[in-house]
Amino acid sequence: MTNLLKPEISPFIVMEILEEAQKLERIGKKIIHLEIGEPTEEVDEKIVKNGLKALKEKKYKYSSSLGIPELRKLISDDYKTNFNLNIQPERIIVTSGSSAAILLAILSSTKINEEIIIIDPHYPCYPQIIKILGRDIKTFKTYEMENYQIDINKLKKIISKKTKALIVNSPANPTGVSQSDSILKKLSNLNIQIISDEIYQGLSIDYPLNTILKHDLSNSIVVNGFSKYYSMTGWRLGYLIMPKRLIRYAQKLQQNMFICAPTISQHAATGCYKISKKNKDFLIKKYKKNRDFLIKELKKMNIDINYKPDSAFYIFCDMSNYTKNSLNLCKDILDKVGLALAPGIDFGKDYKKFIRISYASTFSDIQEGMALLHSYLKKYIK
Amino acid sequence: MTNLLKPEISPFIVMEILEEAQKLERIGKKIIHLEIGEPTEEVDEKIVKNGLKALKEKKYKYSSSLGIPELRKLISDDYKTNFNLNIQPERIIVTSGSSAAILLAILSSTKINEEIIIIDPHYPCYPQIIKILGRDIKTFKTYEMENYQIDINKLKKIISKKTKALIVNSPANPTGVSQSDSILKKLSNLNIQIISDEIYQGLSIDYPLNTILKHDLSNSIVVNGFSKYYSMTGWRLGYLIMPKRLIRYAQKLQQNMFICAPTISQHAATGCYKISKKNKDFLIKKYKKNRDFLIKELKKMNIDINYKPDSAFYIFCDMSNYTKNSLNLCKDILDKVGLALAPGIDFGKDYKKFIRISYASTFSDIQEGMALLHSYLKKYIK
Repeated sequence: MTNLLKPEISPFIVMEILEEAQKLERIGKKIIHLEIGEPTEEVDEKIVKNGLKALKEKKYKYSSSLGIPELRKLISDDYKTNFNLNIQPERIIVTSGSSAAILLAILSSTKINEEIIIIDPHYPCYPQIIKILGRDIKTFKTYEMENYQIDINKLKKIISKKTKALIVNSPANPTGVSQSDSILKKLSNLNIQIISDEIYQGLSIDYPLNTILKHDLSNSIVVNGFSKYYSMTGWRLGYLIMPKRLIRYAQKLQQNMFICAPTISQHAATGCYKISKKNKDFLIKKYKKNRDFLIKELKKMNIDINYKPDSAFYIFCDMSNYTKNSLNLCKDILDKVGLALAPGIDFGKDYKKFIRISYASTFSDIQEGMALLHSYLKKYIK
Repeated sequence: MTNLLKPEISPFIVMEILEEAQKLERIGKKIIHLEIGEPTEEVDEKIVKNGLKALKEKKYKYSSSLGIPELRKLISDDYKTNFNLNIQPERIIVTSGSSAAILLAILSSTKINEEIIIIDPHYPCYPQIIKILGRDIKTFKTYEMENYQIDINKLKKIISKKTKALIVNSPANPTGVSQSDSILKKLSNLNIQIISDEIYQGLSIDYPLNTILKHDLSNSIVVNGFSKYYSMTGWRLGYLIMPKRLIRYAQKLQQNMFICAPTISQHAATGCYKISKKNKDFLIKKYKKNRDFLIKELKKMNIDINYKPDSAFYIFCDMSNYTKNSLNLCKDILDKVGLALAPGIDFGKDYKKFIRISYASTFSDIQEGMALLHSYLKKYIK
C-alpha cells in the first residue's frame, strides 16, 4: 500500500527532550525538568474531593454534549465575578482539554484553504493543527525588544481577503507575556474572527487577569481550560466561549467529534470555584518568586531577559551568546548535567537560538536547575 | 461578519429526542429510554477501584501521548489471550474515546478530497466526521434480507482510484449485526485502507468475538475502546491499533490535537482486565435475555425482525407497517406514552421508516417499553 501522507506534521521537539530525559531517569540519572509546560503544583483538594465524590456517586455516564449545566453556570458566574461580564451558559461548551476547544474553534469559524494568522513565537501545536485541518497559515512576528507585543498597524498590512481568523495567545506560551489591554481592544476591532486562547488566564503576576471578551463580548471565540491555572493537566478539560451565531454549529461538531468531555473531570472541576482567595494568591506569589529568581540567575550567566515575562510561567531566553543551535545545546545540557530545557525551534523557525524555561516547578528544582546550567556553561562553553 | 460555514453538519437526531425526553422528565413525566447507545450497566467495581486509587495517588498529570505503558501492555495481552495475536504495545495509541480514535484513523490514512466508503446503515457520526475533515463519502448499502452482510463483489465495483479507505463497523450500530469472518477476510484483501471500528467487540451473543486483525495483522487500522463493553461512556477512553507505517504519524497527530487521553480513566481501565469471566458471561446472558424478549414482543406487534441481530445491543426495526416517517413516529410515541426510541434517519437516508431500539437497558425497562409501544400502536395507529 502506498503511503501518501500529507500534510507533514512536525514532531513536538520538547516531547523528544522529555522522552530522552525519561530514558536517562530509567537508568537512574537524576533529571531537573524545566522543559514542559506542566505545573508540578498539586491539584487543590477541593477538586480531588469532587472527583472522588463523582466516582463514588457513579457520575461517569455521557454528559450533555455541551457539558454539565452546573459547571457551565460556574464558568459563567466566574466571568461575572472577575470582569462583570454576562456570558450566558448557553455560549459555553465544555471540551476535552483546551486542545479540543482549539479544534472546534478553527472548524467552526474557517473553511478548508482559508487562512489563519498565528503570532510568532507561537504555541507549537497551532501550525500543526491548522495544517491537519487543511487551513493555511500566515505568521506574524513579534519581537523581544517590543516586549512581544503585537504591532497592530503592521498586522493590518498582512490581512488579506483570504484571512479569516487570527489566534492570539495572551498570556502566551512560550514568552510568558500578556498583550496589553489596548492591543486586545484593537484586535477585537479587526474584521476577522479572533480566536483568543486564554488558557493561561489567572496566571498573571504583574497585571490583573484579562480577557478579550471585555472588548468584544459577542464576536470573539475564547479558548480556556483547567490545565494550567488549576494544574488539571491529565484531566483533559477545557472550554470554549462561542459567539451566538456559531454555538449551534460548534455543538454539532462536538456531538460528532467528541460526544462530550470526560464526565468525572467536569464534576471535579466544579471544585475549582471553591478554592480560597488565599490559596490562589499563594500560587501567584510562588510563581513570582520563581520568575524573579530565574531572571536574576540568568543575568549572572550573561543571559539577559530584555522583556517582561509577566505571566504564564515561561521565560523565553535568547541564547545567542552561547549557541547558534539551541536544540543541540538543550540535548547536550541534558546529557552532561541532567537539566531538561525546551529548544526554541518548537515555537517558530526564527528561534533556533532560544530556549524556553518553565517555572511551573518547585523553587528548589529551579535553584538546582540554575546551578546546573551555570556549571554547564562554565565547564563546556566558556 | 458573514458566516460562510461549510460543510453542513447534520445534528444527531437521537440527541434531539434525548433532549426532548429530558425536558419531559424535568416536568415530572416518566420516560423509558431505549433510544441511546449507552449501557445502563454499572461500571465494574474493579474499574472504579482503580480510578479511586489513581485519584488518591495523584496520577492525574499528562500521560505519554501514546497512553500509559501499563494499559497498552494489558490491551496487547488481551489480543494474545483472545485471538493468539501479537500486537506490540508500540502499535497501540490510547485515545480520548473511540471518537478521537476515528479522527486519528481517518487523518492518518487519507488526505483531503480523498474518498472513504462507509456501510449503510451507518453510525451517525461517520459521514459527519468525514465531511468535517474534508474527505469525500461514498456509501455502500447492505440489506436486511441479506442479514446486513457486505456483498464484496458489489462493493468492489464501487471502489475507484479516488477511494482510499473503508470504515467497517462490526459488530454494528444500528443493526447489531456482525460481519461474517469470511467477509472480514475478504475486506482485508481489498487494496484500500480498512478502518475497522470494533467498539462493540465482546458484545457478541451468538458468535465468538472477532477482529479483522485475525486476517490482516499488519495493515488494518482498528478502533476500539472502553465505552460499550465496559460501559465506561463518560470516561472518554478508546484506543487505536495502527499499522507500523502509520504509528509515528498518528502519534504526532495525537500530540498536537489531544496531548493525551484522560489519565485517571487510563488508570481506571487497567481494572477492565481483572473482571471475572463469570461477570463477563453474566453481562452477555443479560443482553441475550433482553434481545430475545424484544424480538418476541416486536413480533407480537407485527414488527418482524427478518435478520439476526447477534451483537452490540441494538435492533434495527423496519416500521413500514406503521409509518412512512419514523422521526414523527418517534416524537409522537415519546409525547404520547413516554417511550424514547431512535429514528432511522440518523443512520442513513434510506431508513426513514426504521427505528433503532437499544437493549443496553434493564430488563424491566425493556418490558415496560414494549408494553408502552404496544399500547401506543393499539390506541393511536390501529
